Amino acid sequence: MAPVHPLLWRSLRVFQVYGANTDVGKTVFTTILCRAANSIWGKEQTTFLKPVSTGPEDEADDRHIQKYAPGVDRSTLLQYDLAISPHAAAKGKSVPPDKELLSKIYRFASRRATHGPGWLFIETAGGVHSPGPSGTTQADLYTVLRCPVVLIADSKLGGISLTISAFESLKLRGYDVEAILVFQDSEYDNERYLRDYFTTHGIPVVSLPKPPSRVHDGNIDAKVMLQYYKEGGESAAAREILDHLDRRHQARIERLEAMSGEAYKRIWYPFTQHKLISSDSIVVIDGARGDFFQTLVPSTKEEAGRSDLVLQPSFDGSASWWTQGLGHGNPSLTMAAAYAAGRYGHVMFAGAVHEPALALAETLLSGIKNPRLTRVFFSDNGSTGVEVAVKMALRAARLRYGWTASEDIGIIGLKGGYHGDTIGAMDCAEPSTYNENIEWYDGKGIWFDYPTIKCIDGQWVIEVPDTLRVDLGHDQAFPSLSDVFDIDSRESRHEHKIYEEYIEKVLSHHVRNDRKFGALLMEPVVIGAGGMQLVDPLYQRALVNVVRRSANLFGSSSEVNSSDPTCWTGLPVIFDEVFTGLYRLGRFTASSFLKSDADVSVHAKLLTGGLVPLSTTLASDSIFQAFESDDKADALLHGHSYTAHPIGCQVALESVRQMQRMEKQDEWGWAKDSEWSGCLSNQSSATKLEVWSIWPWNLLDWISNQTELVAGTWALGSVLAIHMNAADGLGYKSNAALKLQRALLDGDKEAMWNVHSRVLGNVLYIMGSQKSTKDDIAEISNMIHHALTTQDRAS
Amino acid sequence: MAPVHPLLWRSLRVFQVYGANTDVGKTVFTTILCRAANSIWGKEQTTFLKPVSTGPEDEADDRHIQKYAPGVDRSTLLQYDLAISPHAAAKGKSVPPDKELLSKIYRFASRRATHGPGWLFIETAGGVHSPGPSGTTQADLYTVLRCPVVLIADSKLGGISLTISAFESLKLRGYDVEAILVFQDSEYDNERYLRDYFTTHGIPVVSLPKPPSRVHDGNIDAKVMLQYYKEGGESAAAREILDHLDRRHQARIERLEAMSGEAYKRIWYPFTQHKLISSDSIVVIDGARGDFFQTLVPSTKEEAGRSDLVLQPSFDGSASWWTQGLGHGNPSLTMAAAYAAGRYGHVMFAGAVHEPALALAETLLSGIKNPRLTRVFFSDNGSTGVEVAVKMALRAARLRYGWTASEDIGIIGLKGGYHGDTIGAMDCAEPSTYNENIEWYDGKGIWFDYPTIKCIDGQWVIEVPDTLRVDLGHDQAFPSLSDVFDIDSRESRHEHKIYEEYIEKVLSHHVRNDRKFGALLMEPVVIGAGGMQLVDPLYQRALVNVVRRSANLFGSSSEVNSSDPTCWTGLPVIFDEVFTGLYRLGRFTASSFLKSDADVSVHAKLLTGGLVPLSTTLASDSIFQAFESDDKADALLHGHSYTAHPIGCQVALESVRQMQRMEKQDEWGWAKDSEWSGCLSNQSSATKLEVWSIWPWNLLDWISNQTELVAGTWALGSVLAIHMNAADGLGYKSNAALKLQRALLDGDKEAMWNVHSRVLGNVLYIMGSQKSTKDDIAEISNMIHHALTTQDRAS
Repeated sequence: MAPVHPLLWRSLRVFQVYGANTDVGKTVFTTILCRAANSIWGKEQTTFLKPVSTGPEDEADDRHIQKYAPGVDRSTLLQYDLAISPHAAAKGKSVPPDKELLSKIYRFASRRATHGPGWLFIETAGGVHSPGPSGTTQADLYTVLRCPVVLIADSKLGGISLTISAFESLKLRGYDVEAILVFQDSEYDNERYLRDYFTTHGIPVVSLPKPPSRVHDGNIDAKVMLQYYKEGGESAAAREILDHLDRRHQARIERLEAMSGEAYKRIWYPFTQHKLISSDSIVVIDGARGDFFQTLVPSTKEEAGRSDLVLQPSFDGSASWWTQGLGHGNPSLTMAAAYAAGRYGHVMFAGAVHEPALALAETLLSGIKNPRLTRVFFSDNGSTGVEVAVKMALRAARLRYGWTASEDIGIIGLKGGYHGDTIGAMDCAEPSTYNENIEWYDGKGIWFDYPTIKCIDGQWVIEVPDTLRVDLGHDQAFPSLSDVFDIDSRESRHEHKIYEEYIEKVLSHHVRNDRKFGALLMEPVVIGAGGMQLVDPLYQRALVNVVRRSANLFGSSSEVNSSDPTCWTGLPVIFDEVFTGLYRLGRFTASSFLKSDADVSVHAKLLTGGLVPLSTTLASDSIFQAFESDDKADALLHGHSYTAHPIGCQVALESVRQMQRMEKQDEWGWAKDSEWSGCLSNQSSATKLEVWSIWPWNLLDWISNQTELVAGTWALGSVLAIHMNAADGLGYKSNAALKLQRALLDGDKEAMWNVHSRVLGNVLYIMGSQKSTKDDIAEISNMIHHALTTQDRAS
Repeated sequence: MAPVHPLLWRSLRVFQVYGANTDVGKTVFTTILCRAANSIWGKEQTTFLKPVSTGPEDEADDRHIQKYAPGVDRSTLLQYDLAISPHAAAKGKSVPPDKELLSKIYRFASRRATHGPGWLFIETAGGVHSPGPSGTTQADLYTVLRCPVVLIADSKLGGISLTISAFESLKLRGYDVEAILVFQDSEYDNERYLRDYFTTHGIPVVSLPKPPSRVHDGNIDAKVMLQYYKEGGESAAAREILDHLDRRHQARIERLEAMSGEAYKRIWYPFTQHKLISSDSIVVIDGARGDFFQTLVPSTKEEAGRSDLVLQPSFDGSASWWTQGLGHGNPSLTMAAAYAAGRYGHVMFAGAVHEPALALAETLLSGIKNPRLTRVFFSDNGSTGVEVAVKMALRAARLRYGWTASEDIGIIGLKGGYHGDTIGAMDCAEPSTYNENIEWYDGKGIWFDYPTIKCIDGQWVIEVPDTLRVDLGHDQAFPSLSDVFDIDSRESRHEHKIYEEYIEKVLSHHVRNDRKFGALLMEPVVIGAGGMQLVDPLYQRALVNVVRRSANLFGSSSEVNSSDPTCWTGLPVIFDEVFTGLYRLGRFTASSFLKSDADVSVHAKLLTGGLVPLSTTLASDSIFQAFESDDKADALLHGHSYTAHPIGCQVALESVRQMQRMEKQDEWGWAKDSEWSGCLSNQSSATKLEVWSIWPWNLLDWISNQTELVAGTWALGSVLAIHMNAADGLGYKSNAALKLQRALLDGDKEAMWNVHSRVLGNVLYIMGSQKSTKDDIAEISNMIHHALTTQDRAS
């Protein structure tokens, strides 16, 4: 089933009517709005939709419309007989999943839109958080539709409170409340207070008289009501509301259409050659939910019959630059952020402590299961987190080996490794296209080449780069990825020996040339920005082991007291887990694949589940002690204003705990199932896999066989990487993957949705979040399959 | 009046009872809780407090307690006769300001606490957002008290929605809801749904039977009710709730007391020499509101009679490392953050645009009133924002002057200037204590010394440092700060000539020595981290002017087409307004004091009003164009994962607009008044001042006369700086200001509040937010006065 669409058409003005409480007059106001729309926009079609109705059918709200707003189309999608909350009324009945109900609403509205201009009022049931049939509260259920809201206030005693709270529940789910309507009431006069209150939010509060009291005689009652509705529908207030809603609808679309042009003029984009983009190529994002953006349909894509649709779902295939763990617009992350904002805002962290920071530190230190790590330093992002890590490691090494601060001390890294865009983090990367043009860039270190892993023709191959063939020998093929990752077996077969010998040789060479080193810094398992390379973990483990036992090579210090196994030896080992850590690859840490413990470990991106920037650098006691002295100036003199900001920490705490819970409750069981992950693992089908991916094995297998187009592919955790064959050479400047990216962006024209992905030179990667559903991944896998097939034929 | 205290005592368990709606049984439940507490904790005192009661006195809730929970103390602080919302009932009556009502509650609870252990239940009126007497809704009014909440759910139709919304309104204000109570109701059974729902939040939902229907005969009714309360009070459910609340109370205090010890073990603090701190010195922050933290009273401070009080208000005198603009826990910033979180979460920004980012870019570009600036680049904090600015400027200069990327290109800066802690930003600062120990630090540039401004003996003196006396002559005294800032008059008197000649001489010298420069980078008006120096703006203006007209000095390029006045000349000029901008000094930009327009301008800290990290680097078209080419690799290759994160942008938008509104509505009128700002300005008392501060002139004048202790002082906008005389030399390592800091931290022992401030070597500074009130600033001014007086006598 296609992802759920937001409801926005140029011609059809869709508004959702929410109530601050049950029995506040939602149907009465909606009837008046329907009548007024029908009379003022007489040539257009006005429609009333009740997605879920409870209570006897003959008392249903759409009957009310039929009776009091003749000429207005009306419909109910689900009808339950009991006059109670839908979730209770639906008990024992067949309940459609949320996605199905939402799709029904979309299809209904879509059909209305094909009939030309008009109004569609969608009335909810009960209050904003009254549960829908599945039990999901309506405010949560309907957010994905991105309908602007008309909120019906409560005019009774206590109604001010209910109206404000209902407003807040909507607002914190990203709803735009466009108008607040309320019955006139001289006793409580909630209207006056609410008008003042919502003026500061720029939301008009409009009042109408209450309906007359019910008369016992049905005929008279109907007559009196009809007169009431007639007057209401013809009132200046009703016209005023509708005019306002009409203007808001037009303004929203105009703004959406103008945004890419404005952005093109005013924004300076990161990593973007502006000369190579046009305002058309800028994606306008109206909202986002789960794994999907809701994007403006580009004008070039408009075709007969559906040019009217303004927004479409776009799968966020880069997980928004690798940040998304728990999905866009996740209410529990929002609440965590809002709670910390309300409780603290931000508070000074130097010399102070607050609960979210401390609890996060405790959770990370215990979750990471690395006996070396005892301290948490907070900074703003992966780049600053790496700078902090490097400052830590260099100091520790310098003091132990007795060097001065002005000596050239480099790091040992991996070719293509990438650690961020601040100058200090850039200096950790070998010279490349990314940095060779940067005036202050000055690469400080040496960078090892390494064997990588790809699935080719259905087999898992460890590819040795040409430059290393002499030392490391030839490619090796394995039947499964877990065979490659089975470090213990491979070490028992002494496969690491050849790696270690080579590494020792290279290090000795550099040291003989008077190079000094202060740290081993690398991304465990996957080199991210450097080209989505899956690195042989045995090789990375060999690097760690060689570095740790080579103290005599690096300096002339007497080695430390070896009685403390958590004390660093040789050089401090820094793992940059910014991209790979926190369940990206299916595990809390990526380093667990290496069975090696870092002395310093950097975490960001998924840390906050995809909401706000925050980074933590974890360090061992033996690193920490290098900064202890009687001199203030020996301290780690690094700190950002928003260090350990409570919002970031609270969100991270919620996010890490939620992912830990998901792991415990086996929520990725579907992906770990060998039916799905297939040849990623060598385990029997009965076992849940240790090496698994949300991307299905049959897709991977098929891609790996398209050898004319594809050099190889791999998937692990939420990441899928497709290495295209590139006539124009590999690397950042290659355009080989752009065709596939384009095809995914064109997407499914029939169902109007697409996939927004990023390329790194000849590599196209797609990654889901940790909340991605089997259904969505299956849909996207089909689209990838289709895109590659089409491309194949075309080329 | 002392700032409002949070309500937390060791012995007295205080809980606030909120209702999901009016008429949900708040008083019934509270009566049962009171009875149960009174019977189970029989030797302690149980108290019921209704801060604000409406309706006839003989129907008041405290009478109900008297009748049905004998032995329980009860009290009402404000009584209004009409049975409507307090804000309506209070109409025409004398209404105490919120702060007074809150202080009354504190004093009441404080008195109870002195009587020994017990329970205090504070019952609110109506729903969570029902307005209090002043019109502030209760949820907003009472947050500062930090009372844990017992929320009474609504058991009626629609009650699920109301309960969840009420919970969310509380939660997003930082309330901790500790229990949810609800009447049993077999028809709607809200209890079942709510129990499932709140289990995920770890909050117990407990139900009790409804009270019997009211009987007409008052005596019988009372008897029936008494029996109901007897049963309720003795029920297992009531005991269960109270045991839970008791455990939560104890756990909260235990955690607060353990936090500094845990933090001492697990946190690695920024800019902190851990060997010089103890766990006692770590401030435990339980919450924050407005300008005040709510901090754990250190155990050393406990004295007889008040050792029981756990929390105290602490003025956030560093504005939390200069971030706070609109106060801690500001609900409008929280809502902005929550809205963006709900609508988007974070979304990929490269090649995409969303409303908050675009609207913020538009608002900044139009607000800054600098015709040069046309582009906005987003990053995470001031440090990265400066790195981006430097990358921009160096590229532009290098291309124009035809240098290669590997050449040494430096910046022109100011001594003591500080731009952040990432390596690239550090490299912009001259060698100093901050960076001389950092392995990869490599200062790139030259740094000018400069004349500074201080108030000494009531006069405003431009102090020329010894090193510049030969060139710039001697100190100059002015009657007012605005005379110093009157650039036009001073230029008409040719005071800038001597500055310009000196600057030209120094630059020529360096260029003759083959130095290359790529930018002029400085903090306008105030050198922040470098020691809170107020710099002569005429000197900074002279720097800009000399640099701009010296193209021939810097390189051999033909000068650009001079027809475009927004095109940079000489060198790109970067203003680091991270600390000084966005109303810190009373104006949108600090550079407006210089009457100079930057080519690149960096903004952070106050940008988001004090909530989350975000930075913007604004640039001119002539800078932007330097990156346009047909080669991807010529782009500005910088970008953070959370670039332009919607939460940051939405909060910044709200914050900037709110400060602009405050300026327009003259909300700082009290400070601009010449009665208050006095000799900051030379203008007549009738005029609102252009140069003003929230710190009163009489304080400044007095401090400036304590010449034995104080070398000088200044205040501008929200900043007050006190330069202490230092026997141990000036600068970062001096301890001269620590005594004063200590005295402020000890604070007012009688009223139990204090001031948390930061020192920079011999300088103690205190800054408020842009929302600081005249009352609070007057209180703090008194405390400063008192602290300095005591110190004077002691030394």
